[in-house]
Amino acid sequence: MPDSLPADSVGVVAPQTLHFDTPIELACGQALNSYDLVIETYGQLNADASNAVLICHALSGHHHAAGYHSTDERKPGWWDSCIGPGKPIDTNRFFVVSLNNLGGCHGSTGPNSTNPATGKPYGPDFPVITVGDWVKSQALLADRLGIQCWAAVVGGSLGGMQALQWSLDYPERLKHSVVIASTPRLTAQNIAFNEVARQAITSDREFHDGRYYDFDVVPRRGLMLARMVGHITYLSDASMGEKFGRELRDQAYKFGYDAEFQVESYLRYQASGFPNPSTPTPIC
Amino acid sequence: MPDSLPADSVGVVAPQTLHFDTPIELACGQALNSYDLVIETYGQLNADASNAVLICHALSGHHHAAGYHSTDERKPGWWDSCIGPGKPIDTNRFFVVSLNNLGGCHGSTGPNSTNPATGKPYGPDFPVITVGDWVKSQALLADRLGIQCWAAVVGGSLGGMQALQWSLDYPERLKHSVVIASTPRLTAQNIAFNEVARQAITSDREFHDGRYYDFDVVPRRGLMLARMVGHITYLSDASMGEKFGRELRDQAYKFGYDAEFQVESYLRYQASGFPNPSTPTPIC
Repeated sequence: MPDSLPADSVGVVAPQTLHFDTPIELACGQALNSYDLVIETYGQLNADASNAVLICHALSGHHHAAGYHSTDERKPGWWDSCIGPGKPIDTNRFFVVSLNNLGGCHGSTGPNSTNPATGKPYGPDFPVITVGDWVKSQALLADRLGIQCWAAVVGGSLGGMQALQWSLDYPERLKHSVVIASTPRLTAQNIAFNEVARQAITSDREFHDGRYYDFDVVPRRGLMLARMVGHITYLSDASMGEKFGRELRDQAYKFGYDAEFQVESYLRYQASGFPNPSTPTPIC
Repeated sequence: MPDSLPADSVGVVAPQTLHFDTPIELACGQALNSYDLVIETYGQLNADASNAVLICHALSGHHHAAGYHSTDERKPGWWDSCIGPGKPIDTNRFFVVSLNNLGGCHGSTGPNSTNPATGKPYGPDFPVITVGDWVKSQALLADRLGIQCWAAVVGGSLGGMQALQWSLDYPERLKHSVVIASTPRLTAQNIAFNEVARQAITSDREFHDGRYYDFDVVPRRGLMLARMVGHITYLSDASMGEKFGRELRDQAYKFGYDAEFQVESYLRYQASGFPNPSTPTPIC
């Protein structure tokens, strides 16, 4: 954290864990009998609960969207540029709710949680979750918080799919749906890139059929490759060209196996921090 | 091979290995003191050697471009649709030369050849080869075959880069340069995809810093992932959408880890044969 808090920061914030013990039926046909959702809130809910904004995170996202967890934290939450007093999502006006989604593994129940049936982490036995399941769990969260109708549901990328799904599943429970850089459905090419990312992870020897928790390892190489593929798709061909072009790291070609081009270094850097669960994850 | 040869096939063909023992200086600054190039030829060279066409292969390509190696061969060479009597590259008119490039590992000297300095496979000590190096070696091949000037140099993708480089480096030694689906330089996004493919291979535990020959293994998972990334880039977003769309493999979602979509199955299938060196490689 900077020596003094920026004036437009929500300041030091603390996540809360909410426990739900009414079973939730999922699209896959399975149910979770109980589960936790971790949330952060910024700003104050008004008397008629009409100023609440839900932030939906993207792939590999986090509830920590704004402010700092402690005075030692180096970086603020992932969307601090947009959430705070006077910022686009203005916490002087709005009560902002940011959660970690079901299955998200940053505190909300997910594959790294203990499966009550076995006493061990769910791993690959955790049910496959859909966007519709997230929205359903977010509606139950709204009930818990006493929010009948969101002023807005906001998200980018996979978060935008949730904002869109909200408008389809609960049109009477939100005033605005803010869908950023998203789509109602993946194209064949999107599906294909996701398949490469998934194969990179599951073919890593340290994946252990999804039971890597038992071996105290993570499929680090696979996660890094998946992140590299992801980062290419987060930038358009044109913007990547503008940002990096064919710029070399050094004056001339080295004719070796190290990164020769700036864009290669960028991808390696982006990928390197990703498998470490303690690192706050940049969202794209 | 079909029961009888198709009338427009070049028939049964045999590769030849040509040995070169004059050192070739490479762009990286190293030299190969001697090397082999494997070629196939189709059709007859005419009296003034004016009807020769050079076929340049793409990434992971092969000298076996047309016809069959034996009556047991199931599939013809990789460009049999274009090379043969009456076909676009008409062997009734042209003498067609197809080679395996230096470093190509299908018989021409490459990382799997014995390094005379160590008596073991070169592996990562094989020099990094450029398009210019290939063209230089192809010019030496032309000298050996008595071809002063090609009627045409033809290639697609990385092969097209060679056809283009020919026109820059030896403009007086070719009549036509046929550059198909290629480019004079990779964009940042191209470089990025190649970096993912390379990282997939080099981060595979069976890569062993490039000395996997010593362990009698191949970095199979990495090669498969690299091939999946490649296949996505070989098709445009639009053509992939047209070919596969969001078609499921089955009637409904399975909510599991198996391929749900047809495009996922396609990628897995394309990747599965790639690491097996005995499988003729489809060229894209």
